[in-house]
Amino acid sequence: MALNVDRDTLSDLARGAAFLGTGGGGDPYIGYLVARQAIADYGAPKLIDVEELRDDAMVMSIAGFGAPTVQLEKLVCGEEVELALTKLEQYLGIKADAIIPAEIGGSNSMIPIMLAARRGLPVVDADGMGRAFPELQMNSFSANGIRATPLAVTDEHLDFAIVEAASDKKAEDMTRALAISMGLRVFVGCFHMSGRQAKETAVRGTLTAAYNIGRAIRDGRAANNAVDSILRCLKTTSHYRNGKILFDGKIVDLVRETARGFSVGTCRLAELANPSSTCTVTFQNENLEAIVNGHTVAMVPDLICIVDRETGEPIPTQALKYGQRVKVIGMSSPDQLRTPQALALFGPQAFGIDRPFTPIEAL
Amino acid sequence: MALNVDRDTLSDLARGAAFLGTGGGGDPYIGYLVARQAIADYGAPKLIDVEELRDDAMVMSIAGFGAPTVQLEKLVCGEEVELALTKLEQYLGIKADAIIPAEIGGSNSMIPIMLAARRGLPVVDADGMGRAFPELQMNSFSANGIRATPLAVTDEHLDFAIVEAASDKKAEDMTRALAISMGLRVFVGCFHMSGRQAKETAVRGTLTAAYNIGRAIRDGRAANNAVDSILRCLKTTSHYRNGKILFDGKIVDLVRETARGFSVGTCRLAELANPSSTCTVTFQNENLEAIVNGHTVAMVPDLICIVDRETGEPIPTQALKYGQRVKVIGMSSPDQLRTPQALALFGPQAFGIDRPFTPIEAL
Repeated sequence: MALNVDRDTLSDLARGAAFLGTGGGGDPYIGYLVARQAIADYGAPKLIDVEELRDDAMVMSIAGFGAPTVQLEKLVCGEEVELALTKLEQYLGIKADAIIPAEIGGSNSMIPIMLAARRGLPVVDADGMGRAFPELQMNSFSANGIRATPLAVTDEHLDFAIVEAASDKKAEDMTRALAISMGLRVFVGCFHMSGRQAKETAVRGTLTAAYNIGRAIRDGRAANNAVDSILRCLKTTSHYRNGKILFDGKIVDLVRETARGFSVGTCRLAELANPSSTCTVTFQNENLEAIVNGHTVAMVPDLICIVDRETGEPIPTQALKYGQRVKVIGMSSPDQLRTPQALALFGPQAFGIDRPFTPIEAL
Repeated sequence: MALNVDRDTLSDLARGAAFLGTGGGGDPYIGYLVARQAIADYGAPKLIDVEELRDDAMVMSIAGFGAPTVQLEKLVCGEEVELALTKLEQYLGIKADAIIPAEIGGSNSMIPIMLAARRGLPVVDADGMGRAFPELQMNSFSANGIRATPLAVTDEHLDFAIVEAASDKKAEDMTRALAISMGLRVFVGCFHMSGRQAKETAVRGTLTAAYNIGRAIRDGRAANNAVDSILRCLKTTSHYRNGKILFDGKIVDLVRETARGFSVGTCRLAELANPSSTCTVTFQNENLEAIVNGHTVAMVPDLICIVDRETGEPIPTQALKYGQRVKVIGMSSPDQLRTPQALALFGPQAFGIDRPFTPIEAL
């Protein structure tokens, strides 16, 4: 049954998207509030399957860009989000027919819903990652030759810039520098593509997958087995079949800073019953690698999600706290994220990890 | 007699512009080479008086932007300069009828000549400062309500951005951040205005003034009295009547770093015969304040120029060296730079100097 994005489904969708954000993607609660208000004000946007797009439709992406630690402090008006799309449309001289999320994770699942509601456009049930990544060029669109640029960057003062660069990595550098100068809570209208290109490159069905995961957390919580419920749900998805608990314990050390325009840091955990058994999770906005007692147990682009050990509530990196009792869940990434050209953009090496990518099912 | 900008006059013009750069404005020798090559390739551009502009003509500015220490290392191709104009034209949907220098100082006098030659456009004998300033919003255009934005920023890879912001100070912050991410040697197409606006706000006749000063240095050097020749010449100008020698000595200490996208530092000098008599010149790309034995003797926006004490050759901040024997010349700034709205943008306070502006003739 096709999912309706509306007031009833939105909180499950937001919670599941927070899970898929693997720690990042922007604060999910703020995103939820923003999308809920837009649906109340403008009505719910239509969720369409990528196959419903005409081949020659013009599809554009929208995403919050910056560091989650800052996004937590600065609210979203909506006008600056719409401006990012409008400026991109004006610059290209063409209007968007549909909005596709650049990333499903965190508030970046909600912002496209809000924008689609404001503009009366459909939102595509797909994205460019099936998770969240910290940098502009890290997604299945870029991995398949679709350019992020020209892109429009806007802030809450409605100041903006258009960026064009020969590579998406250079565009990331320029946009990151701009974002820092603009207060590190900006929105980017980017990745304009045809309906056909969206069909060829998007990670499909990820809004629906997020909703199903979010619902599984809620249902499992009512039955007091939230984490089991997540794992059962993951097995039913096409993208995240190999899910497992990587660690169960509490946070005993946390180093987190906002640097170079990102939230970066390390979270260390210890087993409750056996404190000498430890797990380390490193992150750059999103969780990158989980190491248990010296052995890597999951690494980017596979997903590493830290959730409350009782309620299954996903905990983004900006909300991690000393003493939290959590479970670390790892799961396989969508197949599209494991191709050689994808791993070149967002495999471990792209984050300075010098160990080659090994799928979670082989670890 | 009207000045022709050509191969014969160019080196005097470049030397005089270096003098008016008050230490900054980009490396004058590189600018000279670039303009000379463009004149050889495309022919000399026509120099026109601002009064020759039609009221409804479209006038645009071009300037190198960054830190002189970096500009010294990275050469200019020309294509990236033309791209800054072309992208601004495309974004505005209108073509330039003439080029007006944003600043007369240093290579930023030569870049407009190069661009005008490439594009077959006239260059206006005027600019927005009558000197050089380090930041985008520091000029007589901004002081009179003409906006720097939209502006186009380009680099040597032909990557570019368009920036629009509610204030020119915010645009400066965004452009500075972009410039740093693009390698700190970028070109900015900006300050589009009507011919009428140019007449109302530009500092007039400054290319001619630069040429006259440059020629005075050359003539004086032949007669072994270059600095006297400069001072005599300044008296004949409409903008720089009050010129004097502030200090005569050698450089005994120099602190210079490339920070926040600028060359910033302090140069300390001592008298040759009496080393206990000292002078300190602070700079941010351009010289800001000269203090002799504890007393301010000149301050921004008045001009402070360090020249070789024998040849009168202007020494930009990036070329200052320990042991150089120099004279520090101070002179009054054009009247347009001393209005309250001008001083708010580029008086001493804008550079963190907590002493109020006092004209050089009163110090």
